[in-house]
Amino acid sequence: MGKYYIDDRYNDLLNLVQDKMSYAAHDFDHVLRVYQLAMFLAEDEESVDRDVLIPAVLLHDIARRLEDEDPTGKTDHALVGAVMVGKILQELGYDEQLISKIKDCIASHRFRSGSPPSSPEAKILYDADKLDVIGAVGIARSYMLGGRHGERMYLDIPLAEYMAKNVGENGRIKDVAQHAANLEFELKLKHIPDKLFTAKAKALAKQRLDFMYSFFEVLKQEIDGQR
Amino acid sequence: MGKYYIDDRYNDLLNLVQDKMSYAAHDFDHVLRVYQLAMFLAEDEESVDRDVLIPAVLLHDIARRLEDEDPTGKTDHALVGAVMVGKILQELGYDEQLISKIKDCIASHRFRSGSPPSSPEAKILYDADKLDVIGAVGIARSYMLGGRHGERMYLDIPLAEYMAKNVGENGRIKDVAQHAANLEFELKLKHIPDKLFTAKAKALAKQRLDFMYSFFEVLKQEIDGQR
Repeated sequence: MGKYYIDDRYNDLLNLVQDKMSYAAHDFDHVLRVYQLAMFLAEDEESVDRDVLIPAVLLHDIARRLEDEDPTGKTDHALVGAVMVGKILQELGYDEQLISKIKDCIASHRFRSGSPPSSPEAKILYDADKLDVIGAVGIARSYMLGGRHGERMYLDIPLAEYMAKNVGENGRIKDVAQHAANLEFELKLKHIPDKLFTAKAKALAKQRLDFMYSFFEVLKQEIDGQR
Repeated sequence: MGKYYIDDRYNDLLNLVQDKMSYAAHDFDHVLRVYQLAMFLAEDEESVDRDVLIPAVLLHDIARRLEDEDPTGKTDHALVGAVMVGKILQELGYDEQLISKIKDCIASHRFRSGSPPSSPEAKILYDADKLDVIGAVGIARSYMLGGRHGERMYLDIPLAEYMAKNVGENGRIKDVAQHAANLEFELKLKHIPDKLFTAKAKALAKQRLDFMYSFFEVLKQEIDGQR
């Protein structure tokens, strides 16, 4: 699937990533989607080094499972991932300067931590990864996670009231059984376009959000038995 | 949520159902959605006895958890549910003739077993329950189940090839990790309109399927990094 082919010389990285990925939202399929998007965004950006971008994309979530499975919630998969990737690429004999650039992309791909992405490759990885949270993919992904965690399908509650009830000061959801994808959309996902760097990603994000708005509108009508 | 109000005299049934429902696809929210749809369908049908329809709707999946949790796969929640509902309504002092009609609706609401629905109330329950599997609700529901069972988001494989590989003679999916909502749609959900009884449900089903076709089309474009 996908338009952009992954060169055979990345087979060792692909095999390694397949072994280490987490479940549902951050599985190997996520890596392949981010790869397709990153290649699509790269077409419109100048001076993108694909020898940096491609390994960074393939390896960006390598430590995600460690974060997901850490009961203390303190593991940051971007920072831990960058360190892991440094070791992996050294063992595979990658050039030190290249390794440093790839690590930099991975360390800065996360929303909430690390320094913001600065290189063209880091910006593309960041944008592609965020785009994968919205649109039809974002809907499917939200519900896959929702089903896994025991969330509700839809909750018709004003956002301010919801936040007062179920969102802690740290932004954490207190009770997942009182959470739903439409609230995740209102709380977080619809603000994604403001956080992107490349013009092409911003345009795609707007289109993907429009699709989500209409999805939740139709969903509400159906739930109300009016469609 | 929902346009149709549930009369207070059904509070005892509602409490009882909330206790007994299963997870995700067949939770209490499903019952409330089916209620909204059933009331909407009932508006266009003649001589519908709501004293039969409403308890039948509220109680129709009462044995679903027993089926979901039966490792032998032999429990039929429609037939077991009808028996359970008979006892519940007797204890609550319902009229015997009414109980018999309600049991009949529940026994015939399932796709694959029991006799087909014959009364107007049984047809409405059947149709409302099937509509809840498609549309935006069907997408959300499929992915909630998919995330719970470890399915993939999307698989781009011709249906005949998929069936040869992953569908047993009994129609069961062999490996859920090689199943995805778009294949569930191709295999089963898109045939729902042919199985419905009321004209209004058929029209709604067509509209809901159109929405699913466009969802999966957009999803595929996004996964291919082209949108």
